[in-house]
Amino acid sequence: MSTSLTVSILGCYAAAPGAFKNPTSQVLEIRNHVFLIDCGEGTQVALRRNKIKFVRIKHIFISHLHGDHFFGLMGVISTFSLLKRTAPLTIYGPVGIKEVVLLQLKLTQSFTSYPLHFKELKSKEPQLIYEDDLVTVTTIPLKHRIYTNGYYFQEKVGLRKLDINAALNLEIDKAYFNKIKQGGDVTLEDGTVVPNHELTFDPPTPKSYAYCSDTSYQPSITDQIQGATVLYHESTFLDSHEHLCKVTGHSTAKQAATIAKEAGVDQLILGHYSTRYPDLNAFKEEAQTIFADTHLADDGEVFTF
Amino acid sequence: MSTSLTVSILGCYAAAPGAFKNPTSQVLEIRNHVFLIDCGEGTQVALRRNKIKFVRIKHIFISHLHGDHFFGLMGVISTFSLLKRTAPLTIYGPVGIKEVVLLQLKLTQSFTSYPLHFKELKSKEPQLIYEDDLVTVTTIPLKHRIYTNGYYFQEKVGLRKLDINAALNLEIDKAYFNKIKQGGDVTLEDGTVVPNHELTFDPPTPKSYAYCSDTSYQPSITDQIQGATVLYHESTFLDSHEHLCKVTGHSTAKQAATIAKEAGVDQLILGHYSTRYPDLNAFKEEAQTIFADTHLADDGEVFTF
Repeated sequence: MSTSLTVSILGCYAAAPGAFKNPTSQVLEIRNHVFLIDCGEGTQVALRRNKIKFVRIKHIFISHLHGDHFFGLMGVISTFSLLKRTAPLTIYGPVGIKEVVLLQLKLTQSFTSYPLHFKELKSKEPQLIYEDDLVTVTTIPLKHRIYTNGYYFQEKVGLRKLDINAALNLEIDKAYFNKIKQGGDVTLEDGTVVPNHELTFDPPTPKSYAYCSDTSYQPSITDQIQGATVLYHESTFLDSHEHLCKVTGHSTAKQAATIAKEAGVDQLILGHYSTRYPDLNAFKEEAQTIFADTHLADDGEVFTF
Repeated sequence: MSTSLTVSILGCYAAAPGAFKNPTSQVLEIRNHVFLIDCGEGTQVALRRNKIKFVRIKHIFISHLHGDHFFGLMGVISTFSLLKRTAPLTIYGPVGIKEVVLLQLKLTQSFTSYPLHFKELKSKEPQLIYEDDLVTVTTIPLKHRIYTNGYYFQEKVGLRKLDINAALNLEIDKAYFNKIKQGGDVTLEDGTVVPNHELTFDPPTPKSYAYCSDTSYQPSITDQIQGATVLYHESTFLDSHEHLCKVTGHSTAKQAATIAKEAGVDQLILGHYSTRYPDLNAFKEEAQTIFADTHLADDGEVFTF
C-alpha cells in the first residue's frame, strides 16, 4: 500500500490576522485520518475554502493557548453542532482548554450535538496521546512563552506486501497469505521452510510529520523527530531579527533549518511568519543556506509528500 | 451642525459563517463616535477590510452570547493589545461576558495594554448604559432564546444655531452668543427683550439608530424606538418559514417591516439572513409590501443617513 501525507495550510501567519493573512491552522491527512492542528480565528471559514469536509475531522490538536492558535476553536465546535454532527470529537491541548470551551457552551446555553472529549496536557516530556492500528501521535514539548507542545504524527510500519507470483509458483494456499503478510515463514508439504523474505516485499517506509510551532530554538527536539519525513517548523523571524527570538519565544528561518538538518528530516516547511516581512522568499533563501529541501507555507496551499 | 449616521456592515448572516458570509458585526459612526456592535468570528479582519481604524473604537456592544455574535470578541481584544493600544475600551453585554474574556486572558497569560472595562447587563427593562454631551445609548430588551438586548443610539438635541446677521443688526455683543445658542432671550440696552427664536435657527433634528438582533417578533419595542431614523432589524426568515421563528427566536422580513411601520421609523435595514436563501432580494420584496424604505444589509456595505 502506498501512502501519502497531505498538509493543507489554512493559515500560517503570526499574531494578529491581516485582511488576507490567517493565523495558524492546518490539516494533516495521514492514513485516512484528517487531523486539524491549531485553530486560529477564521479556521472554519478556511476549512470551507479548502473544501475539507468537517465531518472527517475527529481530532483537533492545539499547541498552546495563545489566541492566534486557538481563538477559532469555539467557532469550529459550535458550527459542528449547527450542522448536527454526531461523530465524536476529541480536543488535545494544554490544561485550561476544557474550562474555556465548557464555559462558552454554558454561556450560550447550548450542548454539542456530538460527544466532545478533551485530553488536557501538562507533561513536559514527550507523551503518546493517540494510537490506533495505523498511526501514533506523540507530543513534542516545545519552549515558548507559555506551555506549548508540538505534535509528532507517525505512521506505523505496515504489513509486508505479498509477492503473489512467488507464492503461486510454490503453490502456497491462500489461507497462508495473511500469515505471510504478517512476516511468517511457510513450511511446504515436503518440509521445506520458505523464509518470509522470499515471499514478500518490504512494506512502504512509514511516513511521519513533525509540527513544531510556536517555539524558540530547541535543539533537544531533534532526537525525537530524527528522520521525520516532513518537519513544519515556525520561523517567525529572519536571522537579522534573531535578538527578538529570546523575548518572544520564537525562531528564525536559519534556526528552523538547523533543526531540520540536525534531525535529518527529508523536507522542511516554514511558517508562522511575522507580518513585518513583505517578501517571504527571504525566509526560504535563508533556510536553504543550511537545509536545501525547504518549502514556504502559504495560506490555502496544499503539500503532498 | 449637520450630522450623519454611518453604518458599516461587517457581517450580516445568521449562524455559521460561510466561505464568503460573515456572522454579525457592524460599526455605527454617530457624532464622531465609532461604536462596534456585535462581534462574530472574523470581525477584526472585516474591520481591516473596511478600513476602520481600531483605535477609534472605544465601546463594543454585544447583543447576546450566541457564538455568531461574540466569537470574534477575544480576537479584537487581543489584537488591540498586540497593537499596543492605550485608550480604554468598554464592553457592554450580558452577564458572563466578563468571565469568559478574563478566563481567556488568564489562560493566554496576558494582560491588555489598555484599561478594559465591562458593563454587564441583566435588566429586562430598557436601561441607559452610555451618555455624554452628544449621544445616549439605551438597551432594547429583545426576545430570543437567551438573554438578548438590542441597542438604541440617539443623538441629543444640539444647540440652537445662531442667526449671526440678526445678532449683528441688533448690535448684540458676542459675549451673549453662547447664551443665545443655549436658548436664552436677550435684553437690549433700551430694555427691549428679543426672544430667542428671532436670533436662532432650530438645531438639526437629532438622528437615532435602533439595532435589533436577534429577536422574535416583539411589537412592544415599537414604543421605545418610535420615530427612529434607522432601524436595523433581523430577518432570519421569509414569511414562508414563519413557523421556524417560534422555535428559533427569530423574525421574518414581514415582521421586521411591521415593526418598522409601527415604530414610524424613517428607514429599515434588514439583516441576519439564514443562509438557506440564495436570493436576498426576496427579503426586500417581502418587507416592502409593508414598509417601502427598506434596505438590504450585505457584508462590506456602508450606509449613510
